[in-house]
Amino acid sequence: MKAVGVVGAAGFAGIEVVRFVLGHPDLDLVYAASDSDAGKMLSEIYPSLAGVTAMEFAPCDVSALAEACDIVFLAVPHTASLGLTPTLLEAGVLVIDLSADYRIRDAATYEQWYGAAHTSENLLYDVVYGLPELNREKLEALGEKGAGLVACPGCYPTASSLASIPALKAGVTTSDIVISDCISGVSGAGRKLSRTSSFCAAGENVCAYGVATHRHTPEIAQTLSDAAGHDVKVVFTPHLAPVVRGLLSTVYLCVEPGLTRDMAFDLYRAYYEHEPFVTVLPLGAMPQTKDVVGTNNAHIGLALDGRTNMLIVSCAIDNLDKGAASQAIQCANIVLGFEETRGLQMMYAPVV
Amino acid sequence: MKAVGVVGAAGFAGIEVVRFVLGHPDLDLVYAASDSDAGKMLSEIYPSLAGVTAMEFAPCDVSALAEACDIVFLAVPHTASLGLTPTLLEAGVLVIDLSADYRIRDAATYEQWYGAAHTSENLLYDVVYGLPELNREKLEALGEKGAGLVACPGCYPTASSLASIPALKAGVTTSDIVISDCISGVSGAGRKLSRTSSFCAAGENVCAYGVATHRHTPEIAQTLSDAAGHDVKVVFTPHLAPVVRGLLSTVYLCVEPGLTRDMAFDLYRAYYEHEPFVTVLPLGAMPQTKDVVGTNNAHIGLALDGRTNMLIVSCAIDNLDKGAASQAIQCANIVLGFEETRGLQMMYAPVV
Amino acid sequence: MKAVGVVGAAGFAGIEVVRFVLGHPDLDLVYAASDSDAGKMLSEIYPSLAGVTAMEFAPCDVSALAEACDIVFLAVPHTASLGLTPTLLEAGVLVIDLSADYRIRDAATYEQWYGAAHTSENLLYDVVYGLPELNREKLEALGEKGAGLVACPGCYPTASSLASIPALKAGVTTSDIVISDCISGVSGAGRKLSRTSSFCAAGENVCAYGVATHRHTPEIAQTLSDAAGHDVKVVFTPHLAPVVRGLLSTVYLCVEPGLTRDMAFDLYRAYYEHEPFVTVLPLGAMPQTKDVVGTNNAHIGLALDGRTNMLIVSCAIDNLDKGAASQAIQCANIVLGFEETRGLQMMYAPVV
Amino acid sequence: MKAVGVVGAAGFAGIEVVRFVLGHPDLDLVYAASDSDAGKMLSEIYPSLAGVTAMEFAPCDVSALAEACDIVFLAVPHTASLGLTPTLLEAGVLVIDLSADYRIRDAATYEQWYGAAHTSENLLYDVVYGLPELNREKLEALGEKGAGLVACPGCYPTASSLASIPALKAGVTTSDIVISDCISGVSGAGRKLSRTSSFCAAGENVCAYGVATHRHTPEIAQTLSDAAGHDVKVVFTPHLAPVVRGLLSTVYLCVEPGLTRDMAFDLYRAYYEHEPFVTVLPLGAMPQTKDVVGTNNAHIGLALDGRTNMLIVSCAIDNLDKGAASQAIQCANIVLGFEETRGLQMMYAPVV
Repeated sequence: MKAVGVVGAAGFAGIEVVRFVLGHPDLDLVYAASDSDAGKMLSEIYPSLAGVTAMEFAPCDVSALAEACDIVFLAVPHTASLGLTPTLLEAGVLVIDLSADYRIRDAATYEQWYGAAHTSENLLYDVVYGLPELNREKLEALGEKGAGLVACPGCYPTASSLASIPALKAGVTTSDIVISDCISGVSGAGRKLSRTSSFCAAGENVCAYGVATHRHTPEIAQTLSDAAGHDVKVVFTPHLAPVVRGLLSTVYLCVEPGLTRDMAFDLYRAYYEHEPFVTVLPLGAMPQTKDVVGTNNAHIGLALDGRTNMLIVSCAIDNLDKGAASQAIQCANIVLGFEETRGLQMMYAPVV
Repeated sequence: MKAVGVVGAAGFAGIEVVRFVLGHPDLDLVYAASDSDAGKMLSEIYPSLAGVTAMEFAPCDVSALAEACDIVFLAVPHTASLGLTPTLLEAGVLVIDLSADYRIRDAATYEQWYGAAHTSENLLYDVVYGLPELNREKLEALGEKGAGLVACPGCYPTASSLASIPALKAGVTTSDIVISDCISGVSGAGRKLSRTSSFCAAGENVCAYGVATHRHTPEIAQTLSDAAGHDVKVVFTPHLAPVVRGLLSTVYLCVEPGLTRDMAFDLYRAYYEHEPFVTVLPLGAMPQTKDVVGTNNAHIGLALDGRTNMLIVSCAIDNLDKGAASQAIQCANIVLGFEETRGLQMMYAPVV
Repeated sequence: MKAVGVVGAAGFAGIEVVRFVLGHPDLDLVYAASDSDAGKMLSEIYPSLAGVTAMEFAPCDVSALAEACDIVFLAVPHTASLGLTPTLLEAGVLVIDLSADYRIRDAATYEQWYGAAHTSENLLYDVVYGLPELNREKLEALGEKGAGLVACPGCYPTASSLASIPALKAGVTTSDIVISDCISGVSGAGRKLSRTSSFCAAGENVCAYGVATHRHTPEIAQTLSDAAGHDVKVVFTPHLAPVVRGLLSTVYLCVEPGLTRDMAFDLYRAYYEHEPFVTVLPLGAMPQTKDVVGTNNAHIGLALDGRTNMLIVSCAIDNLDKGAASQAIQCANIVLGFEETRGLQMMYAPVV
Repeated sequence: MKAVGVVGAAGFAGIEVVRFVLGHPDLDLVYAASDSDAGKMLSEIYPSLAGVTAMEFAPCDVSALAEACDIVFLAVPHTASLGLTPTLLEAGVLVIDLSADYRIRDAATYEQWYGAAHTSENLLYDVVYGLPELNREKLEALGEKGAGLVACPGCYPTASSLASIPALKAGVTTSDIVISDCISGVSGAGRKLSRTSSFCAAGENVCAYGVATHRHTPEIAQTLSDAAGHDVKVVFTPHLAPVVRGLLSTVYLCVEPGLTRDMAFDLYRAYYEHEPFVTVLPLGAMPQTKDVVGTNNAHIGLALDGRTNMLIVSCAIDNLDKGAASQAIQCANIVLGFEETRGLQMMYAPVV
C-alpha cells in the first residue's frame, strides 16, 4: 500500500482524486489537504462520502505531506504547484501534478499565457506529460527511477489530443492548423463561486468563452506538435453547456484527398487497439458525454467530409475524471507498476 | 459464482441490474433477456458498456432461463412477472422480481389498482417484500430454504418507507394518515417513449402527476401499516423534476406533542445505526438526491415543526438503484449469504 | 404616462419589473437604481436588453427617486425597504414593495422571523397586501386615495394562497393545519452568488431546505387565516429543483367527508371565474410550471383523495413574475386605475 | 387585418407561429391545421394558451385554407409543402413556407439531400429565400406583386449565415471552405417522439450528430455562396445540448493577414447597423442563447485568432423563433408592408 496525499482536496478535481484513491486497493489516503476547509469532515462538504470516510481536511503543510506520503496529487490552481513541487520532489515523493505549472515545456510560453513567472524551470526537463496514450513509455521510465514529476494534461487538451493524435502521427493531415471546437460541463470552472457558473447563468444556456485566448491553447498545440513531429497551430474554441460534467472535443483536420472514411477509421482503431480506456465507436456512431461520465473512459467517433477533405473527430470524456482525477490515477498506476486499470474499472458510473 | 439472468435487461432498471451484476465478484451474468432488442449488443443500446462487455440481448425464453440461471432478476412491466415467476420457481431458481406483481399481499387490492387479474395468488403467501431495512430476517430465512421469491419495492415506496418506518415502529405518531410528497427524476418513467418524458416536456418543468391515483399508494400503505402494527392510510403525491435520476420523498407525520427534534433524531439514528446503506444526516442537514445517485445509499434528514407537532422527514435515493436495481442486488446478497454490501460499494458514483 | 423608478433593479425580481415596465404602454421607466451596478448599462448585466434600452443603472438616491417618480417599485432585501418607504410615501409616491418588510401585519412576528427591528410599525395599519385575487377592493381603495403602500406577496405565499383560498373561504376544511409542499426554481434565491445556487450544486439535484423554519411561513399563515376567517397554522416545506424559473405549490387540505371532487372543482372554478390571470385546469389535468414561466399567470389543478378526505391542490406560477415582478405591475395597474392586464398579456412567454 | 392560417400548427414551430400571430395587431388567426390533433383545443396540447384562445385544431383542408386565408404559414415536414403550396399560390394566397421544400434553388441538390422528388421545380424560380438580413429587397418586391412564396431558412442556416455574411460580402476571406460548428437545443428535433429527444437521452449529455451528412449543409452553402459571390463549401457539424430552446453557431473563416479584430468588428457593426433584430455585441463579449430565447433577436460576437488568421464568429438565436416562427412573421411583415418589428418586440421573453 502506498501512502497518498491530495492537495486541493476540497476542489472538484481534488475530491474526485480522493474518491478514486478511496476505492483503489493499493492506495491509502493519509492526507487530504485544503486550507479553506481544514477541520471540516470531507463528508460535510461532499455528503456523498457520508458513511464512506470519516476523514477531515487538513491544512496544507508541505513538510508533513513529504513525510507522510509516497505520492502526492496536486489539484491546485496554477502557480500553487510551483511552490510545493520542488520540496516534495526533493523528499523523494512521486508528484502527480494536475495543475498547469509543468505542462508547458517552454517557460516563456507559460509566462506569456499564465501571466506568472516560472520559478522552477529546471524541472521542465524531466517532467513527463501524463497522457498515457502518447507517453506511456516515459511514464514507465519514471517508475524505474522510483520517483519524479508527472504533469497531467488539462481537460480540453486531453480530449483534443486523443481526437487528433492518430491522424497526426500517421501523417495524413495537409494543414498545420487544427481547429478544436469543444463543449464543456460547468464543473470545469471548479468549485469557486462565479457568476458564469451560477445555475441561473449556466442553466438553459449555451455560449462560447475565452475564444482565441484560452490558456489551454499552447498546451494543445504542444501535444499535437509532438504527435505530428512538426509545428501545429491550434484554433481552440471552448463552449459551455448546461451539464455538470462531461466534455466533448470536435476537431477539424484537413486530410489528403485519398483518405477514405474507412481508412481513417482503421487508422484510429489500430492506434487505440490496446488502450484500456479509449473506445473508437463503430462508423456512424458519435460519442456522447453521458456514456463516459464518472469514468476514465474516452469515446471517439469520426466522419469524413468528402467535399472538403475534412476529417471530423469527436472525443467525449469526463472533464473531472479522464480530464483530471482518474487520468492522474492512471498515470500513478503506470509509474508505480500497478495494473493500469487498477481502481478505475468502468463500473463507477450509472449506465442510464 | 452464481449464474444470473436478467429479464427486461434493456430497460432502465434492467440495465442497471446488469451493471451491478457485471461488477459483482460472485455473480456471473449469463443471460440478458430483451425481446425488443434481442440480437443487439448491450453496448449498442448503452454505449457506456462499450469495452466492458460484448454480450448481446437474447429473446426471453423461460425454459432456457430456468436451465441456465441460479438467480433471475425480473425487471419487467406488471403482469409480465405473473407469466414467468411460477415456472422459474418450480425450476428452483431464486427469483428477484422488480415488478409490482407480488408486492401487494392482497390480490384484490392488486387487481383494483393494477386493473389486471392476479394469476398466482398462492405465491403471495411466501413472497418476501425486499426492503432489507424492514425485512432482513425474512430474506435471510429465504436463504435457508435455498430459493424462493423476493418482491422488490417500488422506488417511491422505498423512499417513503425508509422515511417513515422508525417513527411508526416507535409508535410516536398520532394520526393514521401519512402524507408522502415525492419528487422523482424522469428515468422513473422507464425507457419507453412518452410525451411526458420527452426533453421538451420535462425540461425546465415541474409538475405533480397521478395525484390520489398512483399505483404505488397501496404498496406504501401496506408497508407503513406493517411497520406501525395498525392500519395506516397514505396520501401520496408524486412530482416530476428535470433530473435524469434521483428521488426525494418528504413525509409528514403527526407526532406526540412531547416529541422533540432531538428525540426524533435519536430515534432515527438508532433505528438505522447498523444499516450499511442508510445515513441519517446531522440535524440541520437535509438530503440531496445528487449525493446518492448511482449508489444503493439512502440519505435521511428530518425537522420538527413545533407549532403543529409535525415531523417532516426527507429521504433521498436513486430511483433506479436503491429504488430498483441495487436494492435487488442487496436482497440477493442477503438471500445468498454474501456480504450485504458485496458489489454495492459507494464508490460507484461521482462525488461532485 | 406615469414615471417609474425601480430600486434593486439589477436583481432578478428588479430586472423583471424593468422588463414589464419597458413593455407597458402607460409606464415610463425613469430610474433604475442599483448601488452595486451603478454606471453600468442594463444591457451589460442583462444582454437580452441590448437594443431595447440604453439606460444605465443609477445609485439609489431616495430624494432623487421621490422627485422623479410617481411610482417606485422596491425589489430589495428585507430591512432595506424600511429605510426607503417612509420617505417615498411622505413625498406622495406610490410605493409597490416587493420585499418582506410590510407583509406581516404583526411587527413582533416580523421581528421574530426576520431577526430585525421593525422601524415603521405605523405603516403596517395602512399597507395593502398585494394579492389581487384576495384584496382587489383594498387595492382599488388605495387608488382612490391617490397613493400609498402595497406590500407584494412572496413567491411561495402567492402560490400557496391561490391554491388554498377558495377552499378556506368556502369553509369546507376540517383542520386548522394546512400543509404546503413547494418546489421552486433556483432564481428564487436571487442573483447573489451562493454555493446552493451554483450550477454544480443545483444541477441534477433535488432537495428540501428551510424545513419548518422558512420565513415565508408566517406570511402564508396570515393570508390563509385571513381567507378562512380563523387562525390557520401552516406546515411549509420548500424544495429546490433544477429549473431556472417556476414554482409549484402543492397544498393538503383536510375537507368534509361530503365534499366530492366535482364540488371542489366547481368551488375553485367559481372563485376564479373572473380572474384574468388564474386558470383552473380541467379535472384530471395538473399544472406545469413551464406553462406559466415568463407570465403573470397562475395555473391550478386539484384532486380529492377519498380514502383520507384530503383535497390536494397544486398551483404553478413563475416565481419571479406572478411571484414578484408582474404581480407588482398587476397591483400598480389596479391602484392606478389601468386595465388590470395592461402590459401583462400572456404573449410574453414561449409556448413550447 | 389579414386572415392567417397555420398548417402543422400543433408542431413546435407551428405553435410558435400561432403565438406570434395571436399577439400581432394586424394578423387574425382563422385556421390552425393539424391532422394529428384535429378536434382538440390548442390549450389542451399547449396549456400555456389556456385563457388566451379557445380555438381548436382543424384538419388540413387545402381548399378551405385557400378560401379562408390571406396568408398561410406552412410548418410541415419536407415534401408536405410540395403538396400544398401550388394550390395555395394559385388561389392568390401568400405562402410563407417554413419547410425545406423550396429553400434549395437546384432541384437536383434537393433531391440528393432530401431523397425525394421535387414536384414543382417551376416555383423555384420565383421563391424568395426569407432571410431579411440578406434578401430584404426581394421580400419587398414580392409585396409589390401582392402574393407569392417565401421559403424561410432553417434554424442552422439562419445562425450560420448571419455569422458569416458580413465577412463574405466584404471579401476578406481567403478560403472557399467555411466551418460551421453549431449547438442546438432539443426542440430543434420537433415534437415527434424519438429516443434522441427523450429526457433521459438528452439530459446531462452533449454529442455531435449528422456529421458531414446533415441536410442543412447545402442550404448553408447556397446562402454563403450567394453572399460571397462565388462558390463556398461548408463543413457543418451540429451538436445537441440539454436546453429546450436556443441555437449557437460558431463559424471559422480564414481571413486576410491584414484584417485586425477591430476591423472585423467595424465591418460587422456596419453591416448590421440598421437591422432591428441583429445585435453585434461589444468586443470581448460572446453571445448566449439564453439572451435571445423567445425572441426574433440574433446576438453576434467575434474574435480573431492572430496566430492562424482565423476569424471566429458566434451567433445565438432561438431555433424556433428567429430560426423558424418569428422569422416567418418578420418576412410576412416585410411582404405585407407592415412595420418589420410589428408583433415581434423583444419583450416577449424573460430577462433572467
